[in-house]
Order: sequence, then C-alpha cells, then structure tokens
Amino acid sequence: MPEHKSREEIERVFKVRQIPKNIERYTSENIVQGYLAIDANGAEVRLRKIGERYFETYKGSGRLQRRELEIALSHDQFSTLWPGTEGRRIEKIRYQIDTSGQKIELNVFRGNLEGLVLAEVEFNSPAKSAEFKPPDWLGEDVTEDTRFKNQSLAQKGAPYGEIMLPQ
Amino acid sequence: MPEHKSREEIERVFKVRQIPKNIERYTSENIVQGYLAIDANGAEVRLRKIGERYFETYKGSGRLQRRELEIALSHDQFSTLWPGTEGRRIEKIRYQIDTSGQKIELNVFRGNLEGLVLAEVEFNSPAKSAEFKPPDWLGEDVTEDTRFKNQSLAQKGAPYGEIMLPQ
Repeated sequence: MPEHKSREEIERVFKVRQIPKNIERYTSENIVQGYLAIDANGAEVRLRKIGERYFETYKGSGRLQRRELEIALSHDQFSTLWPGTEGRRIEKIRYQIDTSGQKIELNVFRGNLEGLVLAEVEFNSPAKSAEFKPPDWLGEDVTEDTRFKNQSLAQKGAPYGEIMLPQ
Repeated sequence: MPEHKSREEIERVFKVRQIPKNIERYTSENIVQGYLAIDANGAEVRLRKIGERYFETYKGSGRLQRRELEIALSHDQFSTLWPGTEGRRIEKIRYQIDTSGQKIELNVFRGNLEGLVLAEVEFNSPAKSAEFKPPDWLGEDVTEDTRFKNQSLAQKGAPYGEIMLPQ
C-alpha cells in the first residue's frame, strides 16, 4: 500500500457461503479500526491499525464508488486521535485470497462481531466490476445494503441473523 | 501550541460590537481550515493551516465543553487529505488580544464570509467562564447559537444580517 494514496474506489461486498479450506495458507493481517466521524452524507474519517502500521482514511459519500484519501500516521499521531473513535470500533482478520486473477479480501470479524464473515472485491473500472463472476464460496452481493458497511457494523453491530459460525 | 494535545475545551463565542483600534499591533495569523466530516452528533474532524503549520483536530459533540484531540500534520499529509474538505472551508485572520489578563481571539473572516467578525474566549474551568466580564467592544454571547459554529459557517455561510462591515 502506498504511503499516500488518492483514488476512486470501486468495491463490492459479498456474504460468504463457506470459508475456503485451509484458510491459514493465505496471507493475513490483524486489523483494528475505528471512526472519528461519520457524516450525514456517508463520508467518514477512519483510523486503522494494520499489524504495526497506522493509517487515516477519508472516504467520500456513496457505496460502489467513493473518493478515498489515505495517509500513513506515526504511532504517536494515531494514539492521540484514537480515543475519538470510542464506541465505533471494529476488529477483524483480513485474508488475501487470489482466485483466477481477482484478489478477494476475506474479513473474519472478531470481538462483538465474532462469527460475521464478509468478502470485499476491488475493481479498477466499472467494466471489470460488471464482468466479475463470483466463485461458489461467495454468497449474496450486499454492496448496496448499508447494514453491511463497516461504519454501520462499527456503530450498530451485525445485522440480525447474519452471524455465521466459523467452519 | 503543543504538537499533540488532548483536553476538555471551555470556549465562549461573542459577536463583536467594534473592532479594537490599531488592531494591527496585535499578533495575528492567517488560518485556513476545512472539515473532512461532521457527525450527526456534532463531532467533527477539522484540517487547519496556521501560517505554514498544519494540524488535524477531532472535536467531540457539545458546544461549551468538548473533547479535543489534535495532532500536527506534515505538509504532505495535509495536502493529501485537504481535497476531502471541498465545499466546507473557512478563511480568517485571528488576532490574539490580551484584555485584563484574559486572552481573546478575534476572528476576522475572509473569502465568502468577508465582513463577519467573531471573538472566542477560552477558559480553564467553568468557574472562570462564569466570572468573565466581557469588555465593551464585545457584543452578544452566541456560544449556544449553532449558526455561529465554525462548522456551520463553513457549510451554510454567515447567518442572515450578521455581516458587519470592517471599521
């Protein structure tokens, strides 16, 4: 990930029918993130710790395509702002899975979202997004369901009945 | 200003009846600031350039007393996030005025808020705030009037009829 990035993000979110076997062979990272502010229009400011690296990300409004601005923070900068995210935090393990050339991020949530599993797929263009054929282990496309946005999960918890037990 | 601070802020805001004479003799700074996100509960994430220094500040909800977390940003960090404040920016000159031991910040707004002048007074305790006797050149206390919050001025402009001409 570049230290500073600025791009339009096209991202789709899927439920997960079944976690791929031998999930441990994939690269994974522990992620802790929290929200400083979530705007009425959906824009958000997120703090994120990935392993021992620290980031702050602004995402604009919208769901499928959002402006995204990201900077790396020092540990000191992160620690100063982190208390502002109280009550709006998420913890997850993110696995990087490569399926027929398309990278899929599998998010296994922890803490009070334990048992929730979601997959995120990013695309460079709307065309790439449209032609994507999800593998069998992915379930329903919930890109437009705001209950599955991380900012909603952080504030309101998992949607009723959407916790699947780890397999 | 310390590089990182974390404190409870007690601040009162006043209209200005008359700008003190010879205002130029006071220390002043050019401030440009913008908001990345303003939460429904009033919490905000603000980017600010003071002269050639750069800051990011989280302020919690509330008006008289708010949690405030602040970090210094590098020019590079600031420039990456700044586009996220589009449409919610403020420009002002801030004068530091010392009146009988109480520091008053006089904000002379510029750009599309040209002609608006407000004063901010910060206190260490509710008691200090209660015993404060405003000098004659200060006008109405608008601390509780949300239209005069910087985040409201940045989004909606000056309240109708509140532009005073520079004297």
